[in-house]
Amino acid sequence: MSKGISTREANYAQWYNDIVIKADMAEHSDVRGCMVIKPYGFAIWEAMKADLDQRFKDTGHVNAYFPLFIPKSYLSKEANHVEGFAKECAVVTHYRLKNDPDGGIVVDPEAKLEEELVVRPTSETIIWNSYRKWIQSYRDLPILINQWANVVRWEMRTRLFLRTAEFLWQEGHTAHSTREEAIQESETMLGVYADFVKEILAIPVIQGVKTKNERFAGAEETYCIEALMQDGRALQAGTSHFLGQNFAKAFDVKFLNKEGESDFVWASSWGVSTRLMGALVMSHSDDQGLVLPPKVAPYQVVIVPFMTKDKDVQKALVETANSIANDLKLLGIRVKVDIDETKRPGFKFAQYELQGYPIRVVIGPRDLENKQVEVMRRDLGEKESYSLEGLSENLEAMLHAMQDALYAGRKAELEESIKSASTYEEFKSKIAEGGFVEAWWNGQDSTEEMIRKDTKATARCIRLEDNNADPSDQRCLFTGEAAVEKVLFAKAY
Amino acid sequence: MSKGISTREANYAQWYNDIVIKADMAEHSDVRGCMVIKPYGFAIWEAMKADLDQRFKDTGHVNAYFPLFIPKSYLSKEANHVEGFAKECAVVTHYRLKNDPDGGIVVDPEAKLEEELVVRPTSETIIWNSYRKWIQSYRDLPILINQWANVVRWEMRTRLFLRTAEFLWQEGHTAHSTREEAIQESETMLGVYADFVKEILAIPVIQGVKTKNERFAGAEETYCIEALMQDGRALQAGTSHFLGQNFAKAFDVKFLNKEGESDFVWASSWGVSTRLMGALVMSHSDDQGLVLPPKVAPYQVVIVPFMTKDKDVQKALVETANSIANDLKLLGIRVKVDIDETKRPGFKFAQYELQGYPIRVVIGPRDLENKQVEVMRRDLGEKESYSLEGLSENLEAMLHAMQDALYAGRKAELEESIKSASTYEEFKSKIAEGGFVEAWWNGQDSTEEMIRKDTKATARCIRLEDNNADPSDQRCLFTGEAAVEKVLFAKAY
Repeated sequence: MSKGISTREANYAQWYNDIVIKADMAEHSDVRGCMVIKPYGFAIWEAMKADLDQRFKDTGHVNAYFPLFIPKSYLSKEANHVEGFAKECAVVTHYRLKNDPDGGIVVDPEAKLEEELVVRPTSETIIWNSYRKWIQSYRDLPILINQWANVVRWEMRTRLFLRTAEFLWQEGHTAHSTREEAIQESETMLGVYADFVKEILAIPVIQGVKTKNERFAGAEETYCIEALMQDGRALQAGTSHFLGQNFAKAFDVKFLNKEGESDFVWASSWGVSTRLMGALVMSHSDDQGLVLPPKVAPYQVVIVPFMTKDKDVQKALVETANSIANDLKLLGIRVKVDIDETKRPGFKFAQYELQGYPIRVVIGPRDLENKQVEVMRRDLGEKESYSLEGLSENLEAMLHAMQDALYAGRKAELEESIKSASTYEEFKSKIAEGGFVEAWWNGQDSTEEMIRKDTKATARCIRLEDNNADPSDQRCLFTGEAAVEKVLFAKAY
Repeated sequence: MSKGISTREANYAQWYNDIVIKADMAEHSDVRGCMVIKPYGFAIWEAMKADLDQRFKDTGHVNAYFPLFIPKSYLSKEANHVEGFAKECAVVTHYRLKNDPDGGIVVDPEAKLEEELVVRPTSETIIWNSYRKWIQSYRDLPILINQWANVVRWEMRTRLFLRTAEFLWQEGHTAHSTREEAIQESETMLGVYADFVKEILAIPVIQGVKTKNERFAGAEETYCIEALMQDGRALQAGTSHFLGQNFAKAFDVKFLNKEGESDFVWASSWGVSTRLMGALVMSHSDDQGLVLPPKVAPYQVVIVPFMTKDKDVQKALVETANSIANDLKLLGIRVKVDIDETKRPGFKFAQYELQGYPIRVVIGPRDLENKQVEVMRRDLGEKESYSLEGLSENLEAMLHAMQDALYAGRKAELEESIKSASTYEEFKSKIAEGGFVEAWWNGQDSTEEMIRKDTKATARCIRLEDNNADPSDQRCLFTGEAAVEKVLFAKAY
């Protein structure tokens, strides 16, 4: 126990929750399952959003906004979709409250909606209902739209960022004139996600496709990126779906192709959510608190001049701190100078560690004399002296080095964590150790059920490079029957 | 009737709606009262958001996110607030749907919420319920938080952007240790809004405070900016509220002040919404369609090379267009080159006028020979030849000139529209002409009711400069009684 947070070893789940709370990222609200994203956490989400949004635009997408509410009947139009999403939903049944003669307010029974509205759990249905009006011919295609929105999926057991009833996300919904183009889009966006998570969040991922059972409700193929958390469990960090013509058929969206023939439109959808915040926390943090890759840190450098009673020295310290800050800002580095006199240095330092500020710079009177500062890189945790000469360039290089080091560390861990097994016993013991275990299997529900029961592991994905692997001559590790595909299994969030 | 849009004279309301639809900004969805904001409209909203967000951050605010749902009982906690907001609300009563034995899906009666949830019409209650946990002492203050969110206020009669059941907005919610600081914050944010609307949307506004009846439900003072639309009606473009200690008292939010005494926290809240999109359309547009101030135009310049069958000429035309575009991009100008061969030039030109592209540049074979292009500024509508030499700088200057000219035009109109009256008869005839009429009045509900009945005008605001005007010796224009304040009246959206 340090700074009021648990350790990974003592209680991993508690450690995660403590960091989210104590680093001031988010908290549970009094509304069941809904979180409050606090300013520090939201600033990280904003950095993610800005970078993702630019990547979407660079790949030809535009943003739009569709209604929060979906008529209940829309959810039923796509047979698989309704099974997946029409269950745990927030349902709006009335549109008015009135004063209660006994005090307070009550629902006005006269203001009952003819058709109930569901708060969107995802927007395929409402969007494809619009696309029907927008698409007549191949000239209207492709449509490459993204939406940043809140969605609601009622959850009984919630965890901050990882599983909440309301969460924030983006959902891309694209329409195409050919099957190939829609598949290409799904794959492109998976790549965009993988690159973003790698380059910005410093998290390596496995790119793959889901097994049949794990597909998005209404998809013909679900692509996913899977990351490894420090407790050895996998976390699905983003998905991209090839939807075939399923939603076009459900909502009767046809177009005239170049040959003048009428056909149903092809679709993709793809999304990442505030769940990425959970992945970020669990990928890099340590027992001292959050560790943030510099690219998403709200402040990349914090400069703390010592507070002294000698006014001249004090003035010189603060001036030096401000001067360093200005140099850093010119390099585009986000920097904060902390001259708060009401808090002790030890308290401040602990707080910056807890909140994952990548670099801390401290200047005391002796540093000033020696024209140097004391620098600590959050992930290394060791203090070093740096000359004021060339400091901003050195700190800039240190930020790059930290970003790279975090990624390299996680990459090595992920690669090490992928194992194979030659017997079910070996499979079970390796799953218990954590990480991914690859195995050929027969693709049967009963097999999946057995594995889940025995090991708590689930089929995470078929790696892209294994997606077209030839199953002939391969046997299912679990049943000895003919295998159909090679899958990565893991216990997962 | 031109390009399928009505004219302002023939049918102003229809003209407005036609522009929004035909310029591809938004459309009604099949969900009652909810709109779809289409990519072109959303790009304008994104430009507004980006600029506003920077202004909020420059004035010390941070973003956060609070739940979509508000427990019904929260709305009742502030007596005035409940009267204003707890009526036309979307009410979530259930959290699950189930398969209907007769087909389709139905609400599961067993999944009834113990306490109904209201989809936020505004977030004071849920936010102040959180602030209670965040604030202990003056050291925790001020809290300067903004949220970008969707909100829902059930509306029976909706108009795209101007009045919709769901709309997008930002809502600032600040907490302060003194009354003066909270008032200062409300006034600062009113100024931020007024500057933004002036500098970016090229819309001049009147800054004022609302009369008692028009105040936000729960506010002690509501500041507002009022704009003038082309039909002579006023439109409230933004509000900022000094909330006193009302919400702190309702949610029991106390703090220890510097003197160690416990006191209730002081509050402000402020917001602008997608309604600004409506104000933008109605401020500048003409019978040819939308007119966009360059600062919010998704594309500021469109370059259209003529399409010819001579391949060499065609190549040279497109190369020249791309070269101009590159020069403009280097100046930070948003530019589009249109080489779509499937549409005739006349169609394209009409569409660009309809969508309010600020500058259109056309290059034909003869222009190429003469090293010039044909330029049209959307608000002037006249074609002029410009040399290729120095073109990008000239177009940049033209964008600035257009932004300034739009503002200057609206400013002159607004100033001209403010009149005074010395008798009620004169007041009525001036209100009928459109614009604002100022008058001393007695501040009585009955007077307001009479004015509304006779003229359809409402009290828009007391101008900031009139807010402390001395009412002694002044008589109410409507009743001859003692006056209490000098108010601007107008018919309004």
